[in-house]
Amino acid sequence: MTFDGLDHTHDPALTSWVTSANDPQTPFPIQNLPFGVFRRRGSAEPWRGGVAIGDRIVDLPAVAHHLQGSARAAAEACAAPSLNGLLALGPAAWQALRVAISEGLRTGATLAAEADRVLVEAAKAEMAVPTAIGDYTDFFASIHHARRTSRIIRGDTDVRPNFHWLPIGYHGRASSIVVSGTSVRRPRGQFVPPGANEPIFAPTQRLDFELEVAAIVGVGNALGEPVPIAQAEQHLFGLVLMNDWSARDIQAYEAMPLGPFLGKSFATTISPWIVTMAALAPFRTALAPRETGAPRPPAYLDQGDAAACAGIALALEARIGTSAMRDRGVSDATVTTTDLRSLYWSFGQMLAHHTGNGCNLRIGDLIGTGTVSGPETTSAACLLEITEGGRKPVELSAGESRVYLQDGDEVVLTGWCADGVHRAIGFGECRGRIVPPLG
Amino acid sequence: MTFDGLDHTHDPALTSWVTSANDPQTPFPIQNLPFGVFRRRGSAEPWRGGVAIGDRIVDLPAVAHHLQGSARAAAEACAAPSLNGLLALGPAAWQALRVAISEGLRTGATLAAEADRVLVEAAKAEMAVPTAIGDYTDFFASIHHARRTSRIIRGDTDVRPNFHWLPIGYHGRASSIVVSGTSVRRPRGQFVPPGANEPIFAPTQRLDFELEVAAIVGVGNALGEPVPIAQAEQHLFGLVLMNDWSARDIQAYEAMPLGPFLGKSFATTISPWIVTMAALAPFRTALAPRETGAPRPPAYLDQGDAAACAGIALALEARIGTSAMRDRGVSDATVTTTDLRSLYWSFGQMLAHHTGNGCNLRIGDLIGTGTVSGPETTSAACLLEITEGGRKPVELSAGESRVYLQDGDEVVLTGWCADGVHRAIGFGECRGRIVPPLG
Repeated sequence: MTFDGLDHTHDPALTSWVTSANDPQTPFPIQNLPFGVFRRRGSAEPWRGGVAIGDRIVDLPAVAHHLQGSARAAAEACAAPSLNGLLALGPAAWQALRVAISEGLRTGATLAAEADRVLVEAAKAEMAVPTAIGDYTDFFASIHHARRTSRIIRGDTDVRPNFHWLPIGYHGRASSIVVSGTSVRRPRGQFVPPGANEPIFAPTQRLDFELEVAAIVGVGNALGEPVPIAQAEQHLFGLVLMNDWSARDIQAYEAMPLGPFLGKSFATTISPWIVTMAALAPFRTALAPRETGAPRPPAYLDQGDAAACAGIALALEARIGTSAMRDRGVSDATVTTTDLRSLYWSFGQMLAHHTGNGCNLRIGDLIGTGTVSGPETTSAACLLEITEGGRKPVELSAGESRVYLQDGDEVVLTGWCADGVHRAIGFGECRGRIVPPLG
Repeated sequence: MTFDGLDHTHDPALTSWVTSANDPQTPFPIQNLPFGVFRRRGSAEPWRGGVAIGDRIVDLPAVAHHLQGSARAAAEACAAPSLNGLLALGPAAWQALRVAISEGLRTGATLAAEADRVLVEAAKAEMAVPTAIGDYTDFFASIHHARRTSRIIRGDTDVRPNFHWLPIGYHGRASSIVVSGTSVRRPRGQFVPPGANEPIFAPTQRLDFELEVAAIVGVGNALGEPVPIAQAEQHLFGLVLMNDWSARDIQAYEAMPLGPFLGKSFATTISPWIVTMAALAPFRTALAPRETGAPRPPAYLDQGDAAACAGIALALEARIGTSAMRDRGVSDATVTTTDLRSLYWSFGQMLAHHTGNGCNLRIGDLIGTGTVSGPETTSAACLLEITEGGRKPVELSAGESRVYLQDGDEVVLTGWCADGVHRAIGFGECRGRIVPPLG
C-alpha cells in the first residue's frame, strides 16, 4: 500500500470477469468491493458475509477455500450473520481479503470457472444490517444543517458557540436500526398541535427524513483509553448511507432538556453495503474550509497536516417518490444534492471526541454524521430545512408537493464518489417507505 | 401465584439451610433470590448465572440436574456469560426456577447435601454485568430532581411543561456500563472554566454521582408494536441499583441542543444482582401523589386502578468514603436517603412511553429512572443538588467536605425493601471509586 492508501486494487484500468461490474453505471465495480450480509431471498439459508460486484454478490464463505492465509481466514469469518467476526481480525486481514477478492474477480482470473458456486444474483438476495451494532451515535457535524435548523426552529441567526469547539453528538437507538427496504411505520407520540395548549398522543404530522452517512467501527478501544486524533481513522472499517427518520413534532415536544428520543427511535435505515475506507482512499479531500475567525479545534481534535485529506468527496442525493407518482409511472423526484465534504467535522474528529472522555467504542458500532446539508438551498438535506419548517412545500411532480412525508412516500438516498480520474464507486441505495400507523 | 403476585416463595417464615441467609442483616434471604453472573475470582472458569443466598451463590448450571422440567431448562440456560438466555425463556420459566430454587434452599431440603457442589462463597467470586445490554435508556422520572436542577442550573422555579405529560428520557451509552467495584477514571472533556470565555479540554472538575434504579427488560417487543400500559410491567425481569456518573461541567457545555453525551458516557455502574419483579411483589405501592392541578397522564400512560401498586417501596442510600477517611478507618458518610416511590413516573409508564412510537426493546436492555431524588433536602440524590451546584459543601467527616468528587472517593449505593411485615430484602451494593485521569 502506498502512502496515500492507494494500491493496485484502485487501478481504474481493472476490469472483472463479472461483466456487470464493468458497466460504467454500476456502483459496484471491481475497485469498490463493499461488504454486506445476505442470503437468497425467502430462503432458510444462513445469513453470511458477501462482497458486491456488479449485479452479483461474492459469497465469502463459499469462496474461502479458493483463498490463502489471512484472506482465507477473513473469508471464513464471514460465515456468520454479522461482519463483526471479520472486523475483529483487524485492518491487515481486511486488506488481505480485499486484495484477494480483487485478484480473484479480475478479468482472466481462474475463479471465473467457479462463478456458479461463488456468486449469488443480487436481485435474488435479501440483505441484513451488516454488523451487530452495540451502540449507535449520531453527530450534528454539518454547520449548514445546524445553522438552518437554528434559524427555523429558534429564530437564531447562528449556531451555539459550542458548535465550533466540538462535534456535538448524542446516543441513538441501536435496536431500531433497519436495513434499506424495510418499511417504516408512522410513529405515534406526544406533540402540541398548532393552536392547542396541551399535547395530544397521535400519529406524527411532521415525519421527515435526514440524509446522513455513518461509519462502522472496525477496531474498538478499551474503556478509559481515548483514541488520539492521529489514529482515529484507523478504527473505521467503512461507511454506509443512513436515513435518520425524524418525527419533528414529537422531537420538538420531548427534546428539552435531554435531547432527541422517541422522535428518532422508531426507525433508522442504513444501506446494506459497507463501502470500506480502503475503497474510499482515492476520494479523500479536505473538508470545506472554516470561516475566517472560526476557532481552531483544541489539540485533541486538531488533525494537523492530515486535515488535507480528512474529508471524503462523496456526492449524495435524496429522492422522494409517492404512491401517486408510482401509480402514474413517474420517477422519484430529487429533493437534495449535497456532498459529504461540506461537513464541519471529520469522522476522525468525531471518533477522537467520542473517545476523549474514555468512552469505549466496540466493533460494529455505528457513528452517524447528522444531516449532511450543504451551503446551498438545494443541498439542504431534510424536509425541515427544504420546506422551511413546513412553510414552503416542495414540488415532487405535477400537482403533488410535500411539506412532510405522507403514508406511501418512499425516500431513496444514494451516494457516489466520482472524480473523473479514478473509477467511480457508489453506495447503492438506502430506501424506506412510510406505512400507516397501527389502527 | 395469587392475584397480588405473592406466593409461598415470599412467606416471611421461610428459612434456609444456608444459615447466612437467615441473618436478619443479609440482603439476600431466601425470599429474595436475585440473579447475577459470576465466577470464582481470578479463575478461568466460565462466567455463568447464579442466585445470591446469604453469603453464598447458587451455581445455576451446577444445580440444574437437581431440578425438573422448565426450572431445569431455565437453570441450564444460565450456563452462559449473560442471563439473556434465561430471560428469553419467559416469565413462566423464571417463576419455575424461582420456586425450584426456593424449595431447594429451604431448611430441610435434600439439596443441602450437595452444598459443596452447588454453592460458591460470594466473597470468593467476581461478578459481571448480568445481561448483554443492547440499549440503555435513562429517564428523568423524579420531579424533585427535575425541579431542583432546573432551579440550580437555569434559575427556573419549576419544571418544563412536558415533564407532567410524559416521562422524559434519552438514550445512554451501553458500552461503558460496568459492574459494581469497577474503578471509574476521571474523564477529560471540554468545559468553560469559571471566568473564562473559551472552553478547555481537561479532566472534569465537577464529577458527580447520581443514585438511580434501573430495570432489566426480560421480554422484548417487535419494532412498530407499542406495549400497552396494562402489559408493560410484564416485560420487566427485575431491578438493579445504578450510579449514573456525571461530569457536570462537560455535560453543561455539550448538552445543547442534543442532550447528555460525553458528560455521562465514560462510565455507568450497576449492582451485580438483579432483584426480580417477583421478589419485589410484596413491596408494591402507589407512587407519591401528584400535586393538585397536575395533568392526568394521557391514556397510553394511564395505569387506572393499577396505579395503586405502580410504585415500589425501595429505600435507597448513597454513601461516600474518601482516601483520608479510609486511612483513618472512618466509615463512609451517608449523603442521601431517598425512596423509589417518590418517582413521578412508574417503570410501567416509562416502558409504555418508550415503546409508544413503536421502538423495540430487546431482552437485556437497561432502563434507568434518572436520579431518584425525593422532596426533602436529605433525599437529594446527586451532589449537584446536595451542594446547590457546588455552592454548599457537604461535610463527610471531621474536617473533610466535598462539593464534587475527588480522586480516591468511593460512592456506595444501597437499597432495601423493608415494610416490617414481609421479610426485608436488599440489593447489595453498587460501588465505584474514582481514579485519576491518564497522565
